[in-house]
Amino acid sequence: MAVIYPAIEPRNQEASEQTRQHVDQLTKPLGSLGRLEQLAIELAGMTGETMPVVTPPGVLVFAADHGVAREGVSAYPQEVTAQMVLNMIHGGAGVNVFARQIGAIQKIVDVGVAVEVEAPGVYNKRIRAGSGNMLKEAAMTADEAQRSIAVGLEMAEAIIGEGAKVVIVGEVGIGNTTASSAILSALTGADPEQIVGRGTGLDDAGWQRKKTVVREALALHRPDATNPLDVLAKVGGLEIGAMAGAIMGAASRRVPVLLDGFIATVAALLAVRMEPLVADFLIAGHRSEEPGHDFVLQALGKEPLLSLNLRLGEGSGATLAFPIVEAATRMVREMATFASAGVSDR
Amino acid sequence: MAVIYPAIEPRNQEASEQTRQHVDQLTKPLGSLGRLEQLAIELAGMTGETMPVVTPPGVLVFAADHGVAREGVSAYPQEVTAQMVLNMIHGGAGVNVFARQIGAIQKIVDVGVAVEVEAPGVYNKRIRAGSGNMLKEAAMTADEAQRSIAVGLEMAEAIIGEGAKVVIVGEVGIGNTTASSAILSALTGADPEQIVGRGTGLDDAGWQRKKTVVREALALHRPDATNPLDVLAKVGGLEIGAMAGAIMGAASRRVPVLLDGFIATVAALLAVRMEPLVADFLIAGHRSEEPGHDFVLQALGKEPLLSLNLRLGEGSGATLAFPIVEAATRMVREMATFASAGVSDR
Repeated sequence: MAVIYPAIEPRNQEASEQTRQHVDQLTKPLGSLGRLEQLAIELAGMTGETMPVVTPPGVLVFAADHGVAREGVSAYPQEVTAQMVLNMIHGGAGVNVFARQIGAIQKIVDVGVAVEVEAPGVYNKRIRAGSGNMLKEAAMTADEAQRSIAVGLEMAEAIIGEGAKVVIVGEVGIGNTTASSAILSALTGADPEQIVGRGTGLDDAGWQRKKTVVREALALHRPDATNPLDVLAKVGGLEIGAMAGAIMGAASRRVPVLLDGFIATVAALLAVRMEPLVADFLIAGHRSEEPGHDFVLQALGKEPLLSLNLRLGEGSGATLAFPIVEAATRMVREMATFASAGVSDR
Repeated sequence: MAVIYPAIEPRNQEASEQTRQHVDQLTKPLGSLGRLEQLAIELAGMTGETMPVVTPPGVLVFAADHGVAREGVSAYPQEVTAQMVLNMIHGGAGVNVFARQIGAIQKIVDVGVAVEVEAPGVYNKRIRAGSGNMLKEAAMTADEAQRSIAVGLEMAEAIIGEGAKVVIVGEVGIGNTTASSAILSALTGADPEQIVGRGTGLDDAGWQRKKTVVREALALHRPDATNPLDVLAKVGGLEIGAMAGAIMGAASRRVPVLLDGFIATVAALLAVRMEPLVADFLIAGHRSEEPGHDFVLQALGKEPLLSLNLRLGEGSGATLAFPIVEAATRMVREMATFASAGVSDR
C-alpha cells in the first residue's frame, strides 16, 4: 500500500490581516490581550475565516503497544495500555474528564494494542498486535507504517465529518516515549542523553536503560533522517504514525491542530517532515515536563500556551489548553469595537 | 466609620491531605498532572471540602476614577472609565466575553466614577466622584478608604450569596496602575523605577512622567507602610480598596480568590497586610506584562497559572485562567482510580 498524502494549502494571509485589523478596533488597549490576539490572527489564517469558530473540538486518542516495552523502559507493565483503553471507554481517564469539560467529540482508536480490546466504542483499526521490539527488529514494516498514517487520515476525516473544528490527538501506549525519543533523535540528530526522559516515572536505573535502548536501536537500524516513513517504520510506533496521519489530515482540511505533549509533538514533527505546510496548522498546547518536548517544540518553532508541569499524555494537556483557543475566537466575535461601544480610542 | 475586618481561618490541612491521597490513586502516573494536582490539594484546604466545587465563579468589577489621571499618566482620557462601565453593562468588554465563556455571575460596581453612570445593572456604591489627585492631596480620607473596603466586603457577600464558588475581582479606572504602583512601592519599599509600567500603553515621555508622579506622591504623603489603610487612603483608589475588601470577604467565607493582574494583585497584597491569613485563599491567575506584577506576586509568594502577555485588567486574565481551576476539581471528582478502573498501578 502506498498512501497518497493529501494536498495542504498555506495559511490565508488575507483572512489573517482582516482579523488583525478587527482586533485592533476592539475595546482594549492595543495589543493588551497579547497571545490571544496572535492566536486569533493565526486561526483566521488557518481556517480562512476572519471570525473563526473552534467549537466543538475533536479528540482522537490512538492506542498501540510497543515491543520495546519488554526492555524495561517504562514504569508500568504493557497490559496497562489495554486497561487504559477500557478506562477511556468508560470516561475515567484524565483526557476524558477534560474533554467533557470542553464539550469535545471523543474517539478512541485501537491501532495495535497487544491484546485486542473488545469493547463497544473502541474503533478497531488494528494493524498488528503491537510493534516489534526496536532493539531487535524494525518496529514495523514500511507498509504497516503507511497503513498507520492512513488510519490517522481516516479518523481525522471522520471526526471533522462529525463537526470537529479543532483536532487534538492523544495516545496511550506503554513504551511510547521511548519510540518518540528515538524518532526525534533520528529526525534531528538530537543526543538521546539530552532528550530521553523518565516517561511515566522511571527510576535512575530505568532511565539509563531507556537511553541505552534508544542509542542501540538507532545504531542497529540507522533510519534515514530524510525519510520520515523510514524513521517511523524502524523506531516508531503504530499510534505515533496514526497521530501523524491525523495531524496531516486535519491540516489538509484547514482544521487547526492543538498539540499535546512530547509524543503528539513528535508525531507533528513527522507530519511536517512529510509535508512542511502542516506546520502552518499547528498550535502548541502545553510545555511538557518530558525533556525532549522543548527540543521538538523548538524544531517546530512553536511556543506553547500552557506550562503546568504536565506529563500525562493522552491529549490531556491540549484539552486543558483549548479554552484559551476558544477565548481567542470569542474575543473576535463578541467584544465591542471602540466605535460600536462609543469608547474613546485615545 | 470603622470597618471590622471579618475573621479568617487558615486552610484545612486535613481536607488537603485527604485530597492528596485521593489524587495519588487516580489513573495516571504519580504527579503527572503537575500543577493541577497542587491546585486540587490547595482548593481542598481553602474550601474544607475534599472534592471541592468551583462553579459557578463570580466576577466583581469595581469602577472608579483617579484624580491623578489629570497628570497625564494614562494613554486614555478619564471619560473612558465611564464609557467602559457602559460597555461592560452591554457585555462588550473583554472580561464580559470571557466571563460568559466560563458561566460566571457578573457584577459591575460603581465605587466612584467621576461622572455617575446611570444605567440599569450598575451597582451604585459611590463613595465620591473619583479620588483626589495624589500629587496634590490624599486620594481619599481614612473614612472613605474604610468605606471602599466595606463596599468590597458587601459585594463579596452578595455574589457568594448568589452561589459564586470562586471570586474574581476586576477593575476599570483610568489611572489605576499609577495608584497600584504607588501602593506597592509604599508597602514594600520597591523602587518606582522598577515597578512602574506603561499601563494601557504610555509612550516614553508619559512613562517617565508616571514614575515621577509616583515618586513625588510618595514623598509628599509618606504613607505608613505598616498601616495598609493609610497607604490606601493617601495613594490608593476607591476601586482598589473595594477589591481588597472583596478579597478579604471571600477569604472569610472560605471561597477561593482567583487573582487577575497587577491591580488586583496589589489589592490582594493590601488585604494580606490587613489580615495575613487572606494569603491562604489566593490563586494567581496569570502573569501580566506590567513590570510591577512579578514583584507583587513574589511578595505574595504566588506563581501564576497562565503567562499569555496580557495587560488588559478588568479581571480578564483571571477569567481566562478559571478553566484550569475547574479542571483541577473535575480531575478529583471524575477521574477513575486504579482500583475502580482495574488498571495496574505498577
